[in-house]
Amino acid sequence: MPPTACLLIIGNEILSGRTQDANIRFIATGLAQAGIALEEVRVIPDKAKRIVETVATCRTQFDHVLTTGGIGPTHDDITAGCVAEAIGVPLECHAESYKALEDHLGKEKFNKARQRMAWLPRGAEPIRNTVSIAPGFSIANVHVMAGVPSIMQSMFTALLPTLKGGTPLSSVAWHADLREGTLAEGLEAIQNDFSELDLGSYPFERADGRKGVSLVAKGYDAQQVEAAGERIRLLIEVLGETPLPGEPAA
Amino acid sequence: MPPTACLLIIGNEILSGRTQDANIRFIATGLAQAGIALEEVRVIPDKAKRIVETVATCRTQFDHVLTTGGIGPTHDDITAGCVAEAIGVPLECHAESYKALEDHLGKEKFNKARQRMAWLPRGAEPIRNTVSIAPGFSIANVHVMAGVPSIMQSMFTALLPTLKGGTPLSSVAWHADLREGTLAEGLEAIQNDFSELDLGSYPFERADGRKGVSLVAKGYDAQQVEAAGERIRLLIEVLGETPLPGEPAA
Repeated sequence: MPPTACLLIIGNEILSGRTQDANIRFIATGLAQAGIALEEVRVIPDKAKRIVETVATCRTQFDHVLTTGGIGPTHDDITAGCVAEAIGVPLECHAESYKALEDHLGKEKFNKARQRMAWLPRGAEPIRNTVSIAPGFSIANVHVMAGVPSIMQSMFTALLPTLKGGTPLSSVAWHADLREGTLAEGLEAIQNDFSELDLGSYPFERADGRKGVSLVAKGYDAQQVEAAGERIRLLIEVLGETPLPGEPAA
Repeated sequence: MPPTACLLIIGNEILSGRTQDANIRFIATGLAQAGIALEEVRVIPDKAKRIVETVATCRTQFDHVLTTGGIGPTHDDITAGCVAEAIGVPLECHAESYKALEDHLGKEKFNKARQRMAWLPRGAEPIRNTVSIAPGFSIANVHVMAGVPSIMQSMFTALLPTLKGGTPLSSVAWHADLREGTLAEGLEAIQNDFSELDLGSYPFERADGRKGVSLVAKGYDAQQVEAAGERIRLLIEVLGETPLPGEPAA
């Protein structure tokens, strides 16, 4: 089995509906390519008790915990302190990050609020990024990144090669102008023959209102995935429709 | 305090990165307007054990649990059975929904796979929708909806008035061409004066690369929110920038 991961999105702005999430899919895709199974995502508010408890729980249940959000200079940026508490180490000034921030900003602009960004849990490894100077960090199996998408993406790209991955997830998708109820029986038969794969059906609607379905086979055995994909293609043909490869065009 | 809610997004397709979530923000916004605090979102795979455990846990921790996904006719649509198990009741054929599906589809098309959509946990109240005939359902404090956005939205609109809400969440937002590190100290002072409100700062980047920040005050006391908003506006002016109301234009 591949290593597992849980992603924690820390931020009131998603829970209040103010902001559309722009991070889950990028991270999910990268983890899948690296052969790490994203098993859960949680969006939680930036309340200290909730962050500490969630990090402490999830890091025992999954091989990796990734977090986004809450590592800036303002009073609601409390992720570093909460992760330190969940792991049981103190926060301390990370000298190298402090110096990098001071050099970049100049002494005058490097005020008390900005200095907070150089405080990391003891023993943390900084995760650098090419967009801002303030680092994310890894400590034990917890990996802390910024919430701003451009900064998160740079940090995630730096982080990913440091995580132990597995065989990448293979997948194949066919779509057709069919309804789920028509193909359900045939799809279940294929699933029964490929019990180690995940077979899913995902209805969609085109902009012009036409309805269809995407049939997807996924798993860590690329040959089995290919064989299941061929069975899906045949099922669509048997039902009198034209199988189209990949994702449906909107 | 307002009633609380947890949203469970059931679906491998979000966790694998195949699909961009299109449901969280719609539900989050609707709950906030109804005065229900969305306290957590979890995205979990469509594995029976995980769904049963998560529903059972979350429904003791939050006033309401909403779910999306997994109520279609295919083998991977297992939400109804899992919710029944989490609550401790059997699945049974819901006669009225069965008849509505049969009347709509005709006897020939209403095959075994589609009949599954009429099986609900004993005692469930169907949640109807105007897009498809197959219902979602409420049982105890668990509310089960489809994952397809158009169907989910219709079900959520039918569901929301049946949930006991509270005072709607008030919020005010100002944005400015400022960096978080510059305003952090002033914002914390305002937070200290309005300890019952959530004050947040959200950096953003415009398409042309210019960076700014949105400052948001939220809470259930509209007068306090307004007063905190005025303090935020003044803080931006004191820092030499122009406060602009609402969300920044991209």
